[in-house]
Formats: sequence, C-alpha cells, structure tokens
Amino acid sequence: MSDIPNLAGDAVLMKSDPVPEGSLPVFGIDYSKPESRNSTARDLIDGMRYMGIQASSVAEACDIIEEMRAWRGKHISELEEHERKGTFDEEGYQKTTIFLGYTSNLISSGLRDTLRFLVQHKMVDAIVASAGGIEEDIIKCLAPTYMSEFAAKGSELREKGMNRIGNMVVPNDNYCKFEEWMVPLLDKMLEEQNDNAAKNGKDALDAGTPFWTPSKFIDRLGKEINNETSVLYWCHKNKIPVFSPALTDGSIGDMLFFHTFKASPHQLRIDIVEDIRKINTMSMNSFKAGMIILGGGLIKHHICNACLMRNGADWAVYINSGQEFDASDAGARPDEAISWGKIKADARNVKVYSEVSVVFPLIVSATFASK
Amino acid sequence: MSDIPNLAGDAVLMKSDPVPEGSLPVFGIDYSKPESRNSTARDLIDGMRYMGIQASSVAEACDIIEEMRAWRGKHISELEEHERKGTFDEEGYQKTTIFLGYTSNLISSGLRDTLRFLVQHKMVDAIVASAGGIEEDIIKCLAPTYMSEFAAKGSELREKGMNRIGNMVVPNDNYCKFEEWMVPLLDKMLEEQNDNAAKNGKDALDAGTPFWTPSKFIDRLGKEINNETSVLYWCHKNKIPVFSPALTDGSIGDMLFFHTFKASPHQLRIDIVEDIRKINTMSMNSFKAGMIILGGGLIKHHICNACLMRNGADWAVYINSGQEFDASDAGARPDEAISWGKIKADARNVKVYSEVSVVFPLIVSATFASK
Amino acid sequence: MSDIPNLAGDAVLMKSDPVPEGSLPVFGIDYSKPESRNSTARDLIDGMRYMGIQASSVAEACDIIEEMRAWRGKHISELEEHERKGTFDEEGYQKTTIFLGYTSNLISSGLRDTLRFLVQHKMVDAIVASAGGIEEDIIKCLAPTYMSEFAAKGSELREKGMNRIGNMVVPNDNYCKFEEWMVPLLDKMLEEQNDNAAKNGKDALDAGTPFWTPSKFIDRLGKEINNETSVLYWCHKNKIPVFSPALTDGSIGDMLFFHTFKASPHQLRIDIVEDIRKINTMSMNSFKAGMIILGGGLIKHHICNACLMRNGADWAVYINSGQEFDASDAGARPDEAISWGKIKADARNVKVYSEVSVVFPLIVSATFASK
Amino acid sequence: MSDIPNLAGDAVLMKSDPVPEGSLPVFGIDYSKPESRNSTARDLIDGMRYMGIQASSVAEACDIIEEMRAWRGKHISELEEHERKGTFDEEGYQKTTIFLGYTSNLISSGLRDTLRFLVQHKMVDAIVASAGGIEEDIIKCLAPTYMSEFAAKGSELREKGMNRIGNMVVPNDNYCKFEEWMVPLLDKMLEEQNDNAAKNGKDALDAGTPFWTPSKFIDRLGKEINNETSVLYWCHKNKIPVFSPALTDGSIGDMLFFHTFKASPHQLRIDIVEDIRKINTMSMNSFKAGMIILGGGLIKHHICNACLMRNGADWAVYINSGQEFDASDAGARPDEAISWGKIKADARNVKVYSEVSVVFPLIVSATFASK
Repeated sequence: MSDIPNLAGDAVLMKSDPVPEGSLPVFGIDYSKPESRNSTARDLIDGMRYMGIQASSVAEACDIIEEMRAWRGKHISELEEHERKGTFDEEGYQKTTIFLGYTSNLISSGLRDTLRFLVQHKMVDAIVASAGGIEEDIIKCLAPTYMSEFAAKGSELREKGMNRIGNMVVPNDNYCKFEEWMVPLLDKMLEEQNDNAAKNGKDALDAGTPFWTPSKFIDRLGKEINNETSVLYWCHKNKIPVFSPALTDGSIGDMLFFHTFKASPHQLRIDIVEDIRKINTMSMNSFKAGMIILGGGLIKHHICNACLMRNGADWAVYINSGQEFDASDAGARPDEAISWGKIKADARNVKVYSEVSVVFPLIVSATFASK
Repeated sequence: MSDIPNLAGDAVLMKSDPVPEGSLPVFGIDYSKPESRNSTARDLIDGMRYMGIQASSVAEACDIIEEMRAWRGKHISELEEHERKGTFDEEGYQKTTIFLGYTSNLISSGLRDTLRFLVQHKMVDAIVASAGGIEEDIIKCLAPTYMSEFAAKGSELREKGMNRIGNMVVPNDNYCKFEEWMVPLLDKMLEEQNDNAAKNGKDALDAGTPFWTPSKFIDRLGKEINNETSVLYWCHKNKIPVFSPALTDGSIGDMLFFHTFKASPHQLRIDIVEDIRKINTMSMNSFKAGMIILGGGLIKHHICNACLMRNGADWAVYINSGQEFDASDAGARPDEAISWGKIKADARNVKVYSEVSVVFPLIVSATFASK
Repeated sequence: MSDIPNLAGDAVLMKSDPVPEGSLPVFGIDYSKPESRNSTARDLIDGMRYMGIQASSVAEACDIIEEMRAWRGKHISELEEHERKGTFDEEGYQKTTIFLGYTSNLISSGLRDTLRFLVQHKMVDAIVASAGGIEEDIIKCLAPTYMSEFAAKGSELREKGMNRIGNMVVPNDNYCKFEEWMVPLLDKMLEEQNDNAAKNGKDALDAGTPFWTPSKFIDRLGKEINNETSVLYWCHKNKIPVFSPALTDGSIGDMLFFHTFKASPHQLRIDIVEDIRKINTMSMNSFKAGMIILGGGLIKHHICNACLMRNGADWAVYINSGQEFDASDAGARPDEAISWGKIKADARNVKVYSEVSVVFPLIVSATFASK
Repeated sequence: MSDIPNLAGDAVLMKSDPVPEGSLPVFGIDYSKPESRNSTARDLIDGMRYMGIQASSVAEACDIIEEMRAWRGKHISELEEHERKGTFDEEGYQKTTIFLGYTSNLISSGLRDTLRFLVQHKMVDAIVASAGGIEEDIIKCLAPTYMSEFAAKGSELREKGMNRIGNMVVPNDNYCKFEEWMVPLLDKMLEEQNDNAAKNGKDALDAGTPFWTPSKFIDRLGKEINNETSVLYWCHKNKIPVFSPALTDGSIGDMLFFHTFKASPHQLRIDIVEDIRKINTMSMNSFKAGMIILGGGLIKHHICNACLMRNGADWAVYINSGQEFDASDAGARPDEAISWGKIKADARNVKVYSEVSVVFPLIVSATFASK
C-alpha cells in the first residue's frame, strides 16, 4: 500500500468493524437442488428470502401474511359478553381481523379471480375498494373486459366505444348493460328508502333506522348479482363488509345521477357517516388487526385511518409502486403510518415496491392458496 | 464507406426522409440575452417551450391554462333563459368553467397559499379535494404544520405525537384543537338536520329538502373558520363549490365517528348522491370546461368523470408523478381519458410528469399570477 | 332513458362497436383447479397470461424467452465457411445469440446465483454488465454481502465501514481483501503488457496484437478466481464474453488507479475500441439475436446499440422500473429502440415494468430452469 | 370527550410534546406582495424554501450551489508549491472544484444551452457525461434535433429514418453527417497514434507517453468542431476536462467500429486507465469538492467514486427521478453515498426528486445566472 496516495488509500481501504453476530449473508436460489426447477411458489419464496432488494420484501410479505393468519387468542367461552365482538375462527378462537384494500384496476384485471378466492374462503374480514373496484366486479358478470395495449390510441378507441384501462378495454355496451341492470334495482332501493321515511318520520335519519350507506348498497349489489364469479357475491354470502366511501365516483355515480331525474321529487340518499362508524368499530373490536393493502390512494388511507382507532395495526403489508418523495399518502412507507399510530411501533410490516399483478399471484399461491 | 461491413453500414447510415416542413428544432435558453439572468417566470417558460422532455410540457401546461382562461363566448344577453347556467365573466360573457383538483399533501405543503390565491381571486370555478385537503386547511388556521424530514423515524415521532406527512410534521395537538373547534359545529349541524327532519317528516330525504352533503359541509367549514388564510374561507365567500365525496376519510371522519356517540340516538347523515348530481350538473352546464388536476387518485378521476357528462373537457392539464404501467387511473395519460369521452378528442391537453410543488409555483407565476 | 339529460346520456351510454373477433377476454387463475394451490412457476405464468396490467407482460416475457431459446436454423454442414460464425447448438444447428445485460445491484443481490446458473449452463451467449457487476462477483468469492435496510443511516454505517447498496451492506474489509487479491494480478497483467510492447515494438497497438480490453481483463478475473460460485468463472469456462466498457467505474478502477503509482513509469492500458468491435461483430454474426436486459443505463443501451449493427434484434425482453417521461434511454420502451433499428419492427418484444428481483426468479423458473 | 370510546380517543387525541424551539413552520408564497407576480427565479426560490415536499428541496439545491460557489480558501501565495494543484479563482484564492455530471438526453434537449452557459463561463471544473452526451453535442453543430412525441410509433419512424429520444427525434442523416465529419478526424488521430508508437517503441504504453483516452479524444472533438454553440468547444477552450469512460457506447462507438476496418492492420486504442487516474487526481487535489449530478447511472456513480478518493465531497446536489427501492446506484439517496465515504458525513446535500429539465432552468436562473 505504500505506493498509494494516503488520502485515497485511507478512504478506500479503511478497515471495517467486524460484522455483528447474526448478520445475514445475502444469497439466492441453489440451482443444484431439484426444487429449483419449475419451482413451486413456496420454493420461490424460500429462495427469495435473503436475496435482497425487493425479492426479500416479497418473502417478508408472505411471512407476515402467514403470521397474521396463524395468530389465535382465547376461546370465545373464556371471554366476557362485551368482549365477544371481534373475529373468531370456526372453533371459536380469537383470530386476526384482516383488512384487505384494493384499487379499481385490480378488479378490471384478472386479479379479480384471486380476490374472489380470498373472500369465497373467508380469508379476509373486511374490504375497502374504490368505486371502480365495486362496479367493475358487477359489470364483469354481465360482459367481459378485453386485453388491449397501453399505446392504443384514445380517439380511435372513443370512436369505437372502447374504454381503456391501462392495457385492457371495456366496451361501452358493458356500461349500457350495467345501466339496464341497475335501474330497476335503484327503483327498488328508493322504494325501500321511501317506505322507511314514511314509517319513521322525523326519526328517519337517526342511528339505527335503516338508511342506505355505501357498504349496504354494495352488499345489496352482491346479493342481487347472485353470481359465483363475483367478489361482491361472496362478500354478501360470507358477511364480509365492503367499504367504499366515494362510491359515487364512477359508473355507479353515473347511474345514481341519472336516477335522480327519474326519481324526482324523491332522491336516493347514501350516507357516509354510518359507514365510518362501522369500519372504525370493526377496527376497535378486532383482537389483532392485519392490513393487506394493494395499491394506494383512498383505499390505503382508509384502512390505515380505521386502524388508528385501535392505536395501530399489528401487521401491515403494502404492495404498490408509489414513492414517498411527493409526500402523498399513496407513496408513504409504513414508517409514516407508525408516526400517526396507524401501525403499532413494534408491528411487523413491509412495503413491497411493485405493481400488484406482478407479484400478488405468487404471494397468494405461497400463502392463502398454499394448501 | 466501402470499408464498412454492409449490414452494419446500411443500418447505421441509412438515409432519412427530409424533415417535414414546420418541424420544430429543439432549443433552449439564449443566455446572451439579458432576460436570461434571474429570469421572470414568463421568461423561463418561454425558454422551456422547445426544450423537449418535460420542460416543454411545462410550457405547454402554461399555454393551455392561458387559453382556457382567455376563452370568451357570447354575452349573457344573447342567450335564452335556459342557457344561462354556466360560468360568466364580470361583464357577462361566457367563459370556461375550470375544475381544479388537488390532493391532501398539497394543502399540508406551502402550496396551500397558492391554491388560496386562485380561489381568492375567483380564478377557478369548482374544486375537488381529498378529505385531508379539506381538514388540513382548517387545521392550519388553528396551528401550523412544520418542516421535517422524509427519514424521520416513525416510532420516535409517535412518542412525541408528531404525525409525519412526507417531509413535514403535524403535532397531534393540532388535531385536538380541531376536535375542540369541530364538536360545537357538529352539534349545530345535527340540530339543523333534526329541525329539517321534524319539519319535513317523510319528505325529509327528498330532492330539494335541505340535507347535508360533503360540499355543503365543507362550505360551512369555510364560513365558520372565517379566516383569510383559508382556501375554504374564500371558496365559501366566492361561492366556489368544493367536492370531496370521501369526506369521512380522515380527521373529519374521526370527529364524525366520535360525534355519533355523543349524538345518539340521533346521527348526522352526509349524502353523496346529491353531490354527484351537483358536480355533474356543473359540468353539463359549462360552456367550455377546463381541468387542472394536481396529483392522482380520487380527485383526478372525479373531475374526469364529471366531464364525461358533457362528452369531454375542452382543455386538460395533469400534473403528477404517476405512471401508466400499473393501469391505475392515477397514472393514466390524458389519452386514456379521451377513450372514455372524459376529454374531447381534439382538446388541447398535457400531462406534466412532475411532483406538483416543484413546478406549480412557476406555472402559476407565469399564468394566473403573471399580472 | 327518457329521464336522463341527453348530453350526459349520449356520452355515457354511447353504443360501442362489436368487439373484434379474436379479442381476448381478461381472466385470471382458476382456483377450483388443483394446480392453483402452491402452484409451480409454469402454472403461475399460465394463470397470468390474460390477467392484464404487468402480469400479462411477465407471461409474455416468458413466452418470448422460450421462443428465442427454441429457434433453430440450418445445420452447420449446410453453411458456407464464411457463414459459420454465429451460435450453434451442440448438434450443430444455428441458434439464437442471446445477449444478457444486468446492472451491478443484481450481482450484489442473491440474483447472482440465478445469473450464474444461466452462464454455467451456457444458456446465454454474451453479457454486458456495469463495473460493479464485475467486481462484486469476484468480491463475493472472498467474503459475503449482508442484509441491511434502506433506512440504515449513512454516517453510522461509514463509521463502521459498512457500505450500503439499497437494503444490503458490504463491509469495507471485503474491498481490502479484493485489493490484496488484485495487486499481484495487476502486476502480472502489466508484465504481460510490457512483454508484448517489447516484442511488438511500434506495432504494439495494432489490431491483432495482444492488448488488454475490458472483456479480456474480465475473462482473466474469471479464470483466476477459479470459484464455482462465480458468474465470471463460468463465463471464462464457457467462453461467454463479458463486456463492460466503463470497467474503471468502481472498485476495479480504484485498484487500477492505485496500481498506476506502483507501476510507474509503466502503466496498464485498457482499450475500449477493440471491445466495441468484438461485441458488434458478435451481433453481425448472429443468425438471430435475442436481448434480455435486466435494468437500465449503460448495459441496456450497449446491447441495443450492438444489435443495430444487424439492423435489429429479433426478440427483446426488458425488465426495469425506468419510465420514458424523462427521455432517458434507461426508461425508453422497446418501441423507441425500433425507431433506431435496434429492435426489428416485427420483433416480438416486451417491457416488464418491475424491479428485477421481484420477478426474474419466477421467470427463470418457468423458462430456463423449467426442466 | 366523555362520549368517545377510550381506545380510539386516546389514540386519536393523544397529547403531543411541545414543538422544539426553532421548528420551522411550513408556508408558501405571499401573494399580497408585488414580487409574487410574474416572479423572478430568485423570488420563486425564496417562496419555495419552506413549502415542503420537493419545493423546499429545490430551494435547498440552490442554497447549496450558492454555498459551493461562494467558498474561498487561502491565496495561492500562502500555499507550498506541492499544494498548488486544486482550483483557484481569478484572483488566486482557493475555490471549490465543481464536478458536473449529466446524461445524454439532456444534451439532446434544449438544456444543452444551459450546460454550455456553465462551461462557457467556467462555472464548473470537470464534467462526466455518457457517450451520447458527447456525440449529440457535436452532431447538433451539424444539424438540429426536432420536437416529437413520446407516443410517435417506432416502426413508422424507422421507415422515415427518424430516431426517437423521448419526445424528440434525430434524423438519421445527422449521423451520416457526423460520420463524414468523424472519418478524417479518426484518420488523423490514428496517424498521431502511429507516430507516437513509432517514436516511443516499447515505451509507447508507458505513463506520460501520449496515448488516446476518452477525455483527450473528447477535448479534440471540442477543438475541431470550433463552434460556439458547443459544450465541448467551451470545455476545450476553458480547459475543463470531460470524462466519459464508456465513450464507445453510442455513435462514436459506431464510427470507431467502422474505422477499425478502414484502419486495418492499425487500430485506434482508447485507454480508460489514464482517465481514471486523471479524474481521481483532480478529486484528491481539490481543496473543496462539490457535485452537481443531473440524472443517474454511470455519470452519477463516476463522480461519487472519484470523490471517495478525497474521503467525500463537501457539497452534493442530485437531481433525478430514480428511486432507491431497486437498490440501484441511480436511485440511491445521498445518504447511501455517505456510507461509502463518497460524500462527507457532515456535507450539506440534497436530492431533488424531479426530471431535470423541469427544474434545472429555474435553479440555474436563480444561481449561476442570477447576475
């Protein structure tokens, strides 16, 4: 080293402290093993655990999901009456209340089948979705969405009546079919509202009096569509509430808008206060709370905010491609939610920086669908 | 060229067609001119117009904003009664209805002052904001938000009661102050609701009967805060409606939740159907419609969807850092909205790929605040 | 529909053209099938093919890789002597020349084992890597890289001599070990250079005279490390050239810099002209060319530029998280490369918008490692 | 508060610690002041300083640039002979050595004029650029680059010979013109190399013997183009070295490749070892070192690595849109460079998360071009 300029040599060849005991070397898949060939989802996840970058985050997400699913507390018989409000397994033991959030585009994509699998088998306990994540589920029961390209030209698509969602298109006729399906249902809902108003008079707006909310509206959609391919059908069937506070922000909103003309002088009312009480109460009642949030925006914030009511979730998995530099909630890391008390300081949590469809099939296959 | 292998030579040195007439060379700022020194906003924009990459998009955004602001149609006296529903200038000429959307983080940031400037001077006609974009405006009238760092540790912040939003923090006491301010107001609102219910009986839910909606709730906040630093104050004062369909998704939602316990057996109801009618009607009544959308998610989709009701906006400026590859509406280019009829096929439009605070002060200075 | 305002109704409920024949509906995984449980890599890829968003791009990447691997042309015995310069399979049939590019961080991560698997089994024909992608492979033979966190504080790490690469750290001692390993080798290389200079005199710089280039330097590293865990070892063994034009941009550069003091008045020379001839010649000689490019920057452009010499690659797979809005080559879509003649206009190509480690293990498992 | 459930109330309305003294409130532009109208660059920067998100990062970048420019040390007459190697101002005082890095796309854009302004006025001391950042500067002296669109179709552009770079195009004829300009120059360079080889014989490769390196090759381009619009012309004129270790990765590489056929049996040699010594020596000799790095990839790492030789830069400004989640050097925050000793632990530093062209004109106007 004597030939090297001191300044540079000292900087470049500085001695390091010993590596702390328990430090984990980075390594990958051992291709000499037979399970490295056309691996199963679990084999892949095992091979990604110490890979670093986002591969290890994917494995961490799987581990967290397994941990939140596996947790069990006391048996219901050991609890006081007023403590019996959270989630229990089929044998009566306390388990984690899992909040699943997803954005509209995931329902437009084939991930809808994965999301349906989760609710069909009661693997999650509440859902928060954006408006498109509600209506597109119903519309897909009426007619399909098609593959397209990100670069398909907007003006040409408009001429043909093809509405683009990323690299997919929905023919406008699908929305016409949806309108036909919705109109009689809205008529019926209004009738029920009018009946309640007539029956309850000045108490018609009070707590406990039947009143339309986004979650009740959505539950009704799931009931009426009566179709096993639907996420909402299974949510209805399995009593999994679906929250969507901005339910009017999409095609359902268009239909409700049109319906105001037909309904006049009556008008459907959809109240968002009762729903905030409902989701917050679920959070407060949960014995343990786990978040699985696919995408950003409203659905991410809404679950986090609900979990603040219990001073933080116990497990959190974010999967999205947002970034924190714009100070958006969409891109915020779990650590920002910790500062708010939305995730507990000691809760195991991870953010997988990935578009959801790339990685969620693998994660589900290695966890919820591993058996 | 004879020495060059044909295959490579033909590929690399292929002749090109003549450049089409009217092609615009890329060029930048001429630093020999005095206005290149500590330039004004307009000088900068002029220098960026043919710079390419996103610099030219910034200039295009300014040009579009100026165009939408400058448009004038007929005088109100030339219109039939039923046509007199859109936006007019002070002299009675038709002008563009400008929809401004922004996300919560922008109100947390110092851009709030810029947004207030726009509404104070009636430069926009309707606002769509996320819930945080409502409440943080009020809270800032009660106590300030502070500078922090993206890397500030969540668990340490939580211990101190400091809630992080990107590189800013809001002390939790600010929310306590907000609660104190809100409780009597919510009591008053409930009282008004009860009065209406009592007065209107079974018609209490009908169209035309007074009923709380997010936009009416927000207008009331603006009125009550009575503070010239507030965006909502000026919106109230200048009759600029502010839409926020998921109004319960934040601190206001927390307060409403708490209030349900206090109010029992009564309960405030906030209806989102009346608001979708209101924003869609504004869109249909507009003579020309312009969009300025800062950020993504709900606020972006909500303005676009409203503009579908008039078969598309006439001008559109998106500023955000979302990307289309995840098929989210947040990241979708204007061309996707064209496929839906949310922007007209021939409408001048641009997406500036930038975090908003980096570029919006410059844009506003060169347009709305140029004089 | 008579109640709906015409303007809105016509826009929202516009009739669409019939869906073109052959349109592909979006769908996902059928969880009623047994293979949906802890699926194999191929099952997952099959389930993602019509999922839309990036899931379908992942499946497309697999299909393209399988197609480029499967292609076979004539037998070598059918070719003229001067045509026998490209890549042949073991039985003598023409096959695709596959160019694999990767960035430094992937070698730092556990993906190194996956990359080694590919070269160990001669599944690719040339590599382009950034400088760190060379040296970190050797350094990992001397001492491990460790798992860390993105949020680990720089000043604290520097005090301990821990160099962070994303969520991994390399102890500085590893670079000291690398220096010890490199010095005698650089001495030897200089000696060989001096011998050649002495032997060839004024012709020492001519074509054909032995001269150090990045690819020859790298080949020597692979030979000397003599370690089966190394990517470069197998590249040497299997005669897979590794290109890295900016070889000095990292620890090897530090060592070369230090060595200039020791070597004075002699000095190693590493020529980049001979290497550009080498890679371009490989491209021109290829019967078919396929690109698999993991990450962006230099390595992406270098492979694309080489493929311009044959008027475009026949297949292209990009995997990266870059975006086009900044007009960088890193973020450019394959369609930009088509405009340059770097990918053929009719070549099957895809860009998977994903961080590489999230998705490449799955892709390799379903393709190269499927049997 | 008595009505609020304790669990939620305690979490939501938790008391916070007093805000530490000296905490800076977030605020924005005061539009009541005249300088808020069509503001100057400095006015805008002043208004962005406490705005939060990236606006405050932009202001911080300006402050850091001003600080690195303003620093002065001792007068040269106070220094020993061997200490007189760094950068001095015109009056003989020590000043900061500023390393400027930029990627190819910026030279393709109109930012080239801004970069030229900086070197014309000797405002920076060394440049690191990617290969395209060299050749496109020369090519623009021969024929212009044109505005285009990100969505322009690749196959149609290829047919016309239009090469797309983001939203710009370069006609292929420009490269033909470049080839015509380069061939005689390469002949001349080879002649000089041959002369040196003949003259120096077996010592032709030794340190101190004239030998082509990227920086010398680039300096010659700047000299020969002799055009005041060129960045390289002014670098040559003002003795600002330009480093580009992967100089062959682009059109110059194509020309060098072609030239190997013409030159045979001779061949130009371009050595990258001498250049790594040159840039590292500049770094070691600098009294203070400042980095301004526009974009990511090679150019970012190369400047950082050089600054390791002096145990870290004293000021660092990164402007790019890369993200850290992929563990790339391109997206790494300054804090990662601190762990390596590439930026000093106490150095003032900032990363502006922005595409460069959006923000660099404003930054330059408020700093380098403020007077």
